[in-house]
Amino acid sequence: MAEQTKGKPIRCKAAVCWNPGEALVIEEIEVAPPEQWEVRIKVICTSLCHSDFTFWQLKGQPDFPRIFGHEAVGVVESVGEGVDEVKEGDLVVPFFLPECGDCADCKSPKSNICGKVIFKVTGGMIRSGTTRFSALSRGPDHPSPIYHVLCVSSFSEYTVVDVANVVKIPSDMPPDMACLLSCGISTGVGAAWKVANVEAGSTVVIFGLGTVGLAVAEGARIQGASKIIGVDLNPQKFELGQVYGLTDFINPKECGDKPVHEVIREMTDGGVDYCFECVGLASLMSEAFLSSRPGWGKTIILGVEMHGAPISISSIEILKGKTVMGSLFGGIKPKSDIPLLANKYLKKELQLEGFVTHEVSFQDINKAFDLMLQGEGLRCIIRMDA
Amino acid sequence: MAEQTKGKPIRCKAAVCWNPGEALVIEEIEVAPPEQWEVRIKVICTSLCHSDFTFWQLKGQPDFPRIFGHEAVGVVESVGEGVDEVKEGDLVVPFFLPECGDCADCKSPKSNICGKVIFKVTGGMIRSGTTRFSALSRGPDHPSPIYHVLCVSSFSEYTVVDVANVVKIPSDMPPDMACLLSCGISTGVGAAWKVANVEAGSTVVIFGLGTVGLAVAEGARIQGASKIIGVDLNPQKFELGQVYGLTDFINPKECGDKPVHEVIREMTDGGVDYCFECVGLASLMSEAFLSSRPGWGKTIILGVEMHGAPISISSIEILKGKTVMGSLFGGIKPKSDIPLLANKYLKKELQLEGFVTHEVSFQDINKAFDLMLQGEGLRCIIRMDA
Ligand SMILES: [Zn+2]
Ligand SMILES: [Zn+2]
Ligand SMILES: [Zn+2]
Ligand SMILES: [Zn+2]
Repeated sequence: MAEQTKGKPIRCKAAVCWNPGEALVIEEIEVAPPEQWEVRIKVICTSLCHSDFTFWQLKGQPDFPRIFGHEAVGVVESVGEGVDEVKEGDLVVPFFLPECGDCADCKSPKSNICGKVIFKVTGGMIRSGTTRFSALSRGPDHPSPIYHVLCVSSFSEYTVVDVANVVKIPSDMPPDMACLLSCGISTGVGAAWKVANVEAGSTVVIFGLGTVGLAVAEGARIQGASKIIGVDLNPQKFELGQVYGLTDFINPKECGDKPVHEVIREMTDGGVDYCFECVGLASLMSEAFLSSRPGWGKTIILGVEMHGAPISISSIEILKGKTVMGSLFGGIKPKSDIPLLANKYLKKELQLEGFVTHEVSFQDINKAFDLMLQGEGLRCIIRMDA
Repeated sequence: MAEQTKGKPIRCKAAVCWNPGEALVIEEIEVAPPEQWEVRIKVICTSLCHSDFTFWQLKGQPDFPRIFGHEAVGVVESVGEGVDEVKEGDLVVPFFLPECGDCADCKSPKSNICGKVIFKVTGGMIRSGTTRFSALSRGPDHPSPIYHVLCVSSFSEYTVVDVANVVKIPSDMPPDMACLLSCGISTGVGAAWKVANVEAGSTVVIFGLGTVGLAVAEGARIQGASKIIGVDLNPQKFELGQVYGLTDFINPKECGDKPVHEVIREMTDGGVDYCFECVGLASLMSEAFLSSRPGWGKTIILGVEMHGAPISISSIEILKGKTVMGSLFGGIKPKSDIPLLANKYLKKELQLEGFVTHEVSFQDINKAFDLMLQGEGLRCIIRMDA
């Protein structure tokens, strides 16, 4: 098939978002061929990550219409000039955080923030600035640009990504499981593994047991943590989390007048080795910090603060040998770490199945948004061919 | 001589502080023999650290009269029951942060905050709570307690410290140089060496070039940093700091409308690898954080915030892979690291001489306070026998 489409525009179905907060519209669009350093992918399946949901709700932004979706897996349909890292037919995972492979950051094991290619929330392709999607709604003779989102835009049968935003994975990896590694679950597992580097036998607390928080638990379980405490307002999350190693649970509603950090300190003989904030609330970030152990306690910030509020940290507490760290994508270096996580899954060392709680066909993509709005389940897989 | 005094109280001269902010009074006091786990030391020389100065100025505290001083070196006069770590005649450095050697923190290389013996700013001995100093001013028949400060109280010809607060050092170490290792300089060197673990070839910025800040530079120089930027309002600090590896200098007064962090980012292609705050101002802590490099930038808080204000950290900036860490005593594990630093000095790997800018006799101890009040010089050595 690629032979027939290579170098030519492809007409296919995409779920286009015309205005913030509005239901996506499935319509025919045109996807231009990949330019230099670009890869055109036939999407197999995709899922809705919470960041997309946040950006979808956010009013007053430019770059509409746009195509959301940044958790996905697909097959390379064709590649542009200069691309030799992946080729036609490869099973690939696209991802939002570019890895050029050439700059000081990409070459260092300490950073996953590429210093050369900067990721964009919306706009055109990261190098040229132009878009590869055209809307045909005004008639095939009047194509108009559709903007890309987070360098992936996977809510389309075909998409074009930069070669810095895609990695080949083992061909025997089940697509729905591969899709999970594209953002949220890698972020959580990575935070425990790459950012905190949780030690065997240590104690962990996780504020917020959504997909990312539970993936932190799974990462901490793999690293050998002996006590993994979950904090969430929904008591059902405890049962759900036990599969991923959760040993204890705190419902802040049931702590009475006692601050959560005091409850945690009492449970852990003075504080926890590794505290993860996965909600995105400055007040919880401070609470996580206060829960951390003097001497070597680390607080890891994963949540994007919802209101842009700064984190407030006691200048006395931090002198007790405490650390606060932040990261994007859980410190994951996608080109090496996503295949590594796929292999861990294939060797049954990493559990992924339980994270898929729903599945819908591409036609029903708006149901994935409804489920997230209702706070139902974890990941909803959207199958392009269903 | 020890044979004559062992087990008996010693009458000697001490510089007693009767009220906050008042000049110390040199008077005869009585120093009780060391009890179980305690060591009585004949002080050779001592110096005034900034924390003592801060606590001396602070109004409204209990525990007066008291004896200040927590940077010192001396010779063991006698030891109490159970002490076999040091013995009569040993050259020793006392220090404020206890190291019991037995608890999980003391046994771990990751922590220097003993979980068993907690340091106290003022009061009696850390285990019994009673004092070993008595004032004789009301007549020898009416001795009244004089309180200890920071577990050391070295502004006295003799003092008693817990065995958790003292370490033997090589006997060929010059006393005035050993005295420097007792607090401030170990803190600065340790912050670069143990807390940040500065990498060879990396970039460093230091906010505040007092003794601790210059010691951070010396630590970073030893670790092989390639660029060490000092930030201070006093331009004379640049020349002073070049001995310790300072390569660049910023006077915030000369930056015009540009925030210091922007100047630093421009000088370092986007930010510094390791940022040290040695002043104790929340606003400078935020400035240090903003100066740190995305990807792996670390901000190390050494200064005790003067007004107890919390540190405010951008929740967006920290997601760029940044870290904020705090420490007491520069992460130094005193029992192993102070002798190690002494050996580094003896091998000419660590520079200490320049930190002594003044010397006074014990009689003139109040001059050391005057010098600090005027912001003059770095360390003033107070010689007990002079
Ligand atoms: Zn995501
Ligand atoms: Zn790069
Ligand atoms: Zn000190
Ligand atoms: Zn201890």
